[in-house]
Amino acid sequence: MTDGLQERIYNFSAGPAVLPLPVLQQAQRELLCLPGQGMSILEMSHRDAAFVEILAKAKAGLKQLLNIPDGYHTLFLQGGARLQFSMVPLNLLKGSTRTAEYVISGSWGSSALKEAQREGTTRVIWDGKATKYDRLPEPGSVHSDPDAAYVHITSNETIEGVQFQREPELGPAPLVCDSSSDFLYRPLPIEKYGLVYACAQKNAGPAGVTIVIIRDDLLARASDNLPGYLNYRSHAQEDSLWNTPPTFGIYLVGLVTQWLLHEVGGLEKMHQRNLAKSQLLYEELDASQGFYRGHAQAANRSLMNVTFRLPDADTEKAFLAEAARRKLGGLKGHRSVGGIRASIYNAMPVEGVTALRDFMREFRSQRGRG
Amino acid sequence: MTDGLQERIYNFSAGPAVLPLPVLQQAQRELLCLPGQGMSILEMSHRDAAFVEILAKAKAGLKQLLNIPDGYHTLFLQGGARLQFSMVPLNLLKGSTRTAEYVISGSWGSSALKEAQREGTTRVIWDGKATKYDRLPEPGSVHSDPDAAYVHITSNETIEGVQFQREPELGPAPLVCDSSSDFLYRPLPIEKYGLVYACAQKNAGPAGVTIVIIRDDLLARASDNLPGYLNYRSHAQEDSLWNTPPTFGIYLVGLVTQWLLHEVGGLEKMHQRNLAKSQLLYEELDASQGFYRGHAQAANRSLMNVTFRLPDADTEKAFLAEAARRKLGGLKGHRSVGGIRASIYNAMPVEGVTALRDFMREFRSQRGRG
Repeated sequence: MTDGLQERIYNFSAGPAVLPLPVLQQAQRELLCLPGQGMSILEMSHRDAAFVEILAKAKAGLKQLLNIPDGYHTLFLQGGARLQFSMVPLNLLKGSTRTAEYVISGSWGSSALKEAQREGTTRVIWDGKATKYDRLPEPGSVHSDPDAAYVHITSNETIEGVQFQREPELGPAPLVCDSSSDFLYRPLPIEKYGLVYACAQKNAGPAGVTIVIIRDDLLARASDNLPGYLNYRSHAQEDSLWNTPPTFGIYLVGLVTQWLLHEVGGLEKMHQRNLAKSQLLYEELDASQGFYRGHAQAANRSLMNVTFRLPDADTEKAFLAEAARRKLGGLKGHRSVGGIRASIYNAMPVEGVTALRDFMREFRSQRGRG
Repeated sequence: MTDGLQERIYNFSAGPAVLPLPVLQQAQRELLCLPGQGMSILEMSHRDAAFVEILAKAKAGLKQLLNIPDGYHTLFLQGGARLQFSMVPLNLLKGSTRTAEYVISGSWGSSALKEAQREGTTRVIWDGKATKYDRLPEPGSVHSDPDAAYVHITSNETIEGVQFQREPELGPAPLVCDSSSDFLYRPLPIEKYGLVYACAQKNAGPAGVTIVIIRDDLLARASDNLPGYLNYRSHAQEDSLWNTPPTFGIYLVGLVTQWLLHEVGGLEKMHQRNLAKSQLLYEELDASQGFYRGHAQAANRSLMNVTFRLPDADTEKAFLAEAARRKLGGLKGHRSVGGIRASIYNAMPVEGVTALRDFMREFRSQRGRG
């Protein structure tokens, strides 16, 4: 049986995205039979003691990596960040007289707001639309109402490539963060958050599993009349086994946490790697004399999604075609904004980033701008 | 690399459940690299042309197997049957002056009703609770209101092991069916249904993907104010790409449909196999002189989940332990009812059922009841 290793390219897709090779290799080895269990993880009851242990291990891996304090629940749900856009206001806002406040730093924050508006009163306390979401609020310039139901941010905007690299100081209202596209890229001071959610398909696993870390006092807010699946309390009380969870996705999240802990050496080391990888590309943009024009302002650049334009659409098309020939894939920008986007999540090796950087340099040189 | 084939047991789990071996083997071969794509299906963008084709192929496979007529949409969603328990009334009932009618033939129907009661007016037109859900309504004995918003049935009750083997004639209101635990076990006359839903983890694929087949006129009913993810129309308009779908699950559903079409030979042949498999076990119950006591009345027995009791709890424990030693796993009844449950879904080979039958015969003989 050939394992397909030789045919793999460098995959810069924004998500679903590259996974750590050792994780894929273990999943492949075990796909017909989880050692000692006589069946595939895909075939195993979620009530089986072996699966309950897999779920506990994935949760423990996240707790250890993020140093999650007592007083928080970690949930494995379905429906992606899109369902969280609704579950957050349904659980924390609906039926209350308070207001939910939103910082809109890109396309995903806008979508989150739209869902919240259906469920209660919202207020936008900052919006970067006027500059096409190329920046974040100046530190200290935005303040939320201390009585707000919560204040929502998007830590990394995948489409525009801007990122909060530390928590903005917005005030005492519970901070809710869509961390879908940068979850686990650095240590996160969970105690600063009321709720962090992330679909897995960027840094944590495959599409189809969504991680929610919620402070226990917020679990009490939801009405008993929410649709059962949408109530965080149902899932917290049953330890993510209120219904059949996405078992294979949870298994892979567990393997990714083990990779981060034991092969990378923890999130501080992962953060250093991510700083180094993104620097390779941003330095190339900055040295290109305007041939590569980064979208984000330098101070707010994302370590996960490097977004840039070339002089014109034809050159961008040629760039993508030539990159594909060199086994550099998934570089096309989001269909809503165009351009180029290199997503360099945790699992993208530095060799892949270097190969892209070298190609960028050569391509620019060929076009007489080197 | 060992592929784990030799260690596999016969897995009678109620779900997640046994998958066809050729499907698992193909998924294992391709797990590091989908042929020609340079990456794993787990790493591929849902906007990639190759994934869009995988999704189209899974949909086409279902259309061919079930002969789905024009005028229906097939959707791949997340959240399991549990989320459908809410989505059905949110889309088809909420805000209307009409009543949704429910036939309660077991535990899952009860749970579906509970969620519907939150969203609008409901009426139970039959409930089998008085006889512990051991039977279904007599044909022709139950009639729904022609003006009902819809009438809901559960085609197979996994926990109790009773099954509608053909559509009950309830009247002209749209028939909505939770087909989670018997989807694809036989040809289904889709034109008799308004909506059929099924989580995949019994007959169609892994946990984490839910299939919804909905008649187009029902798509128009939902309010625009539903949470975005919960609106069937959002998903239908974007062909299940409104948000990132469970890509790996959809890929596996596609492989299962190919197995059914090309290795089994279609759903009529699958049905014949399922009739033969279940007959092996029910004949053994009936010949056991009361040692094995089936839960379901003979006329309403499930072809998917064979539920029975032994003389006492100790004997059941001994049965499960001895079965495990013979590599017959997952036979413990649902925690809510106890006893033994042999789930013999599509992918359970007749050899597995024969092995169980032989063990049952031997076990009874050892206990002096042979």
